Amino acid sequence: MSTPYRYLGRRRPAIDGRVKALGAARYAADVQLAGMLHAQPVLSALAHARLRAVRVEAARAVPGVVAVLTAADLPVTAAPPATRQEAVLARGAVTFCGQPVALVVAESAAAAADGAALVEIDYDPLPPAVGVAGGAPSRPAAAGEYRRGDAGAALRASDHVVERTCRTPFVHQGYLEPCAAVAAPDPAGGGVTVHSGCQGQFEVRARLASILELPAAAIRIVPMTVGGGFGGKSGLIDPLAAAAALRLQRPVKLVLDRSTDLAATTPSPAMTIELALGANRRGEFTALRAELTLDNGAFPAGMGSGIAKRLAGCYRLPHLAIRWRDVCTNVHATGAYRAPGAPQTTFAIETAVDALAGELGIDPLEIRKRNVVRAGDPQPDGTPWPAGGQLACLEAVESHPLWRSRHAGGDGGTGIAIAGWIPLVDPCAAACRVDPDGTVAITLGAVDISGVYTSLALVAAEEIGVDPGQVQVRIADSDAAPYGPSAGGSNIACSAADAVRSAAEQARRQLLALAADHFEAAVEDLEIADGAVRVAGVPDRTISIGALAHAAQNADRSRPHRQGPIQASGRAAGRGGAAVFVAHVVRVAVDRETGRVRPTDYLSVQDVGFAMNPLLVEGQIHGGAAQGLGIGLHEALRHDAAGQLLTGTLMDYGMPRASSVPPVTARLLQTPSHGPYGARGVGEPPIVAGAAAAANAVRAATGAQPTSLPLDPETVWRAVNRAGISSGSGATRPTG
Amino acid sequence: MSTPYRYLGRRRPAIDGRVKALGAARYAADVQLAGMLHAQPVLSALAHARLRAVRVEAARAVPGVVAVLTAADLPVTAAPPATRQEAVLARGAVTFCGQPVALVVAESAAAAADGAALVEIDYDPLPPAVGVAGGAPSRPAAAGEYRRGDAGAALRASDHVVERTCRTPFVHQGYLEPCAAVAAPDPAGGGVTVHSGCQGQFEVRARLASILELPAAAIRIVPMTVGGGFGGKSGLIDPLAAAAALRLQRPVKLVLDRSTDLAATTPSPAMTIELALGANRRGEFTALRAELTLDNGAFPAGMGSGIAKRLAGCYRLPHLAIRWRDVCTNVHATGAYRAPGAPQTTFAIETAVDALAGELGIDPLEIRKRNVVRAGDPQPDGTPWPAGGQLACLEAVESHPLWRSRHAGGDGGTGIAIAGWIPLVDPCAAACRVDPDGTVAITLGAVDISGVYTSLALVAAEEIGVDPGQVQVRIADSDAAPYGPSAGGSNIACSAADAVRSAAEQARRQLLALAADHFEAAVEDLEIADGAVRVAGVPDRTISIGALAHAAQNADRSRPHRQGPIQASGRAAGRGGAAVFVAHVVRVAVDRETGRVRPTDYLSVQDVGFAMNPLLVEGQIHGGAAQGLGIGLHEALRHDAAGQLLTGTLMDYGMPRASSVPPVTARLLQTPSHGPYGARGVGEPPIVAGAAAAANAVRAATGAQPTSLPLDPETVWRAVNRAGISSGSGATRPTG
Repeated sequence: MSTPYRYLGRRRPAIDGRVKALGAARYAADVQLAGMLHAQPVLSALAHARLRAVRVEAARAVPGVVAVLTAADLPVTAAPPATRQEAVLARGAVTFCGQPVALVVAESAAAAADGAALVEIDYDPLPPAVGVAGGAPSRPAAAGEYRRGDAGAALRASDHVVERTCRTPFVHQGYLEPCAAVAAPDPAGGGVTVHSGCQGQFEVRARLASILELPAAAIRIVPMTVGGGFGGKSGLIDPLAAAAALRLQRPVKLVLDRSTDLAATTPSPAMTIELALGANRRGEFTALRAELTLDNGAFPAGMGSGIAKRLAGCYRLPHLAIRWRDVCTNVHATGAYRAPGAPQTTFAIETAVDALAGELGIDPLEIRKRNVVRAGDPQPDGTPWPAGGQLACLEAVESHPLWRSRHAGGDGGTGIAIAGWIPLVDPCAAACRVDPDGTVAITLGAVDISGVYTSLALVAAEEIGVDPGQVQVRIADSDAAPYGPSAGGSNIACSAADAVRSAAEQARRQLLALAADHFEAAVEDLEIADGAVRVAGVPDRTISIGALAHAAQNADRSRPHRQGPIQASGRAAGRGGAAVFVAHVVRVAVDRETGRVRPTDYLSVQDVGFAMNPLLVEGQIHGGAAQGLGIGLHEALRHDAAGQLLTGTLMDYGMPRASSVPPVTARLLQTPSHGPYGARGVGEPPIVAGAAAAANAVRAATGAQPTSLPLDPETVWRAVNRAGISSGSGATRPTG
Repeated sequence: MSTPYRYLGRRRPAIDGRVKALGAARYAADVQLAGMLHAQPVLSALAHARLRAVRVEAARAVPGVVAVLTAADLPVTAAPPATRQEAVLARGAVTFCGQPVALVVAESAAAAADGAALVEIDYDPLPPAVGVAGGAPSRPAAAGEYRRGDAGAALRASDHVVERTCRTPFVHQGYLEPCAAVAAPDPAGGGVTVHSGCQGQFEVRARLASILELPAAAIRIVPMTVGGGFGGKSGLIDPLAAAAALRLQRPVKLVLDRSTDLAATTPSPAMTIELALGANRRGEFTALRAELTLDNGAFPAGMGSGIAKRLAGCYRLPHLAIRWRDVCTNVHATGAYRAPGAPQTTFAIETAVDALAGELGIDPLEIRKRNVVRAGDPQPDGTPWPAGGQLACLEAVESHPLWRSRHAGGDGGTGIAIAGWIPLVDPCAAACRVDPDGTVAITLGAVDISGVYTSLALVAAEEIGVDPGQVQVRIADSDAAPYGPSAGGSNIACSAADAVRSAAEQARRQLLALAADHFEAAVEDLEIADGAVRVAGVPDRTISIGALAHAAQNADRSRPHRQGPIQASGRAAGRGGAAVFVAHVVRVAVDRETGRVRPTDYLSVQDVGFAMNPLLVEGQIHGGAAQGLGIGLHEALRHDAAGQLLTGTLMDYGMPRASSVPPVTARLLQTPSHGPYGARGVGEPPIVAGAAAAANAVRAATGAQPTSLPLDPETVWRAVNRAGISSGSGATRPTG
């Protein structure tokens, strides 16, 4: 891949790869503090009940158990919880099965577990609301609508309309590292330090300040290595650990085991999507009507409007009407999961597009080329689509062997899906120090979940003119760090790159000013390369940046105009996000006897704008493909009618495995954006289209059009055995 | 005390006072890490010997002992040690009694101590050099001379000359907290983190990098609360703790007990000062001739030239010749102690001045007024004395009741001594972040030993316009901190004030730019007070700085010109130091029967330039008075002829106690300097003149002129019983 830069744009392994491979990275669960207690939450066995009593005597009698805490014991706000995070422990009632009711705190994890098994909760059962279908007694939380033109009339006037009702289940972020936090009270009382594998120390600090009713400055969040977050690690269990530590005035470690994590955290909401998409004879889309119901679980997740907007896919739609409603039920709370809702909405619209293409006898790729948005076309909320490689992605697919060979025979099928996504670029700050040994030390308050620090080292190296090996990028705790946003919305690479670039530019100017003094030369005549400043055209006049940093740290009375140590703060304001378009192609083999779908090949084309580090961008795409296939083929949190989680372990919940992910070809397009170096956010887009492409591949292989996710054997078998009639609740209706 | 500022110049209690009073401040010895081992050094019993063998078997057999390490086991440089710090463990030979030879590392401190008692060292004794008098076989380390005019001729031509030989002993810094460090290897191997109660994380990091032969970036120094340093805590035991942790790949805690600290650390060197001071009949000094021999102990301390310069006191001396030599002997190594050497040199010159005044029949204060330097007068090395309140200090004494009542009778005596000192102002950086709750978060890489962070909070409050309670000043580790110098040379208050002021000014500009956007007003029309920006003259148009910080941390597409989070780096280059002049007056009662000297009153006049926080400036002066009296009356590390330390506990080594320090009146003069807000460094000057003033008070009370420190009962009794003849080796000789 060509790059105009010396370091940026070149493949460079993740700087934390070695420590992670060695098992030496320090996660929150690795934190051991002197006098540390271990906590085990006691979860509600019922989905909806009033709490009559929590009997703790037997648990307290377990040797090693120090305390059994209930909500009344915790120094937290008494305000009714509006979010799952605020529901530190249940107070008076439980609203989902798995809700933490008590916390057993003991000298060892084993004693805490023994104690937790002995806590008895007396319930007054209440009828649970489970599911949003039919007359289920769910509670509405919010609702809204996007509207353009007259979708109803336009659909009636359309030559072809597909209608379908899609259902997608709760899916879990499935991070490798379950939630973990270690909280320690300040020795002087009052404050608390939390070691947390969170996605953002400042967000968690603010949340704790609110819940614990403490000044933010009394809370220190020490960010640890994050073993995957995907939207799920924004301070969910930190309030509980911190409250327990403050109450007991001892350090408390709270590490969820996998089953507790699956039961008590915030997976992605379940959805029901009713949708009608119309087209004229030329295959031009005329209108979309859609109705989205999000099952938020126990607390409002507030994601309806954002998710509903994406039901339009990345298509020109002269008329549209998208209604959405968030409803609450008595299952676990929900939250963000990498490109929240987009795999599901993309599944709905993209399978409808393929159905329409089938009706019209138009090639799936061709119908997408005809209808894909161009820069400036309106999104459902009226804001224009930013420029990006919409068509280029489709053209790259068109010429790719995987697509060109789609009709080559066999019992497989090849499906395509496309999507657009607009990452965030948030305000961010960074610090840059240059040390006497020449090290460029970058400090950030934004976490590195996906290797982004490796790219940021390239940014600093590029801007200053040093080898990336000379750059150290470090995260600091919330006391010491420059402000950084939480990792979310694909924001960190671009947000932090802007900030690091700004800091490095200033550090470079500081170095050049010192060197100009040293050489008695004009700054304009100087350049920095390989970690040394030289006078242009005078190759033997060089001074290392380390020597300059050393001089800057030491007083020189003969040069009182010097400005002090090489130390800069970079600030970036955030930008309107640059759109990212993807086209994913999946080839599958379908076993018609069993309904088993086996992906055999995967092509991901993504316009990344500019790949600061192509190796890691590809890594993001590989991971997104795996997760997209997981959502498409395997994953579902299921509940019974009483709200009991039926998939509470990884034996029941179908995470994708290495063996279930085919070879993934990541094809990077680079249409420069207005982001740093032309880059676009990378994190979320890789997940959005895999499930939809897999569904379209199943259709191509079998003619079946399953309308629910995941495409597990039963779902596919049922669809295949109805193929040719109409699949699921989907229906195609020729009109006009 | 009047101040032109809203916050600066007002008395404010130390922000860490509460945690310290509660015992909640965290010192290095309080650090507990999981799997942490405890280390106990084994000290040499001989002052000079070749090491034949170190027998470790018995120690290794102690239950809990994990390892017994000798120099060959440590991953440290093999280069011969040039300093005490580099002599991590003795290699091949020992050069002082108390030198660490081995390190026993065990699961508990008790096991380590048990093991250490069982380590057997086989020595080949060598003759020790102890003391520098006569023909003692000391090794010369360095020598030099300051010369102006012809001192010999000028003395010969003088009307009066006093000659004396003064001897001052080794004195220990006497910090409350003995040296302590906890080192932990990085989980990935290679690097190390050291929790250290040190005076500067960057200095210690550089030292460890050199000794451990590691990149500085592989070393992280976490500065802990410092329980007193006074020059003695600059990485003395950190290399040993770090090397052991790296060798054993487990955390290692090394805490010196008081006796080990007294034996193995770096007290102030002992001195022999031969001195001749001449004057004409008018009481004008004509010439000084002096010879200084510094007993550096086992390693060169490199302080001769700096200390010798101060033998001239703060006097105009048309002719001078000061020779100095550093010699090495077989007692503990030496190092810096608050105003290194100045209490001793001031003792020598100031007692000579009083002797001359006595010869001439001139009042001690009057002779000082006649001879004290004015701005521009040359120091011994030719550099001019900066401006300061030289005369003003003397005038303040002259009008003070303690001085005016000096002849009031009784068996007491009142003595005066003056001195000048030029603090350092080193390059320093600082970071300033403003948080959404309005907190101004200052981050530094320079430690707070004496409450200076409280003053820095006032600086930030003043510059930005917020209540000091809204300011948090925090130290960060060497990874995350802006560069800061080690605390030494009275540098931190002024160095860091410059940096914090610069950072706060920039943060203020950032806030005003945002507010101008918010109000659609010109920056010039805005002001910040009480944590809010307001439009001048429009009192109801205000916005809090927290609200501005919140806006800056959140993207606003309608204001793409915004610059990002409120985050600034302050840089300060260091300055030529501003001179500090002091005049100390001590009244003593002397028991002629026992020789016991009891100070009964103390006046310290110091030109502080500007007291950023008078309360803490006075605290520094109180502490300095106590230490000066300790040096003057109580403290001495004594050795026998074999180099054995005779004063290895606080039963033998006479630290001043609260009961031995009289009421101290701190009189602050404020002649503005070119330092920040006119301030001058405060830390060292309070210690320089107390011993000399006490000696002059003893002379005033008894006529005796003791020439050695401390003025303990035996010394004073002997002097008193020879009073009227000539005391010690001092002699006055009328000439001309």
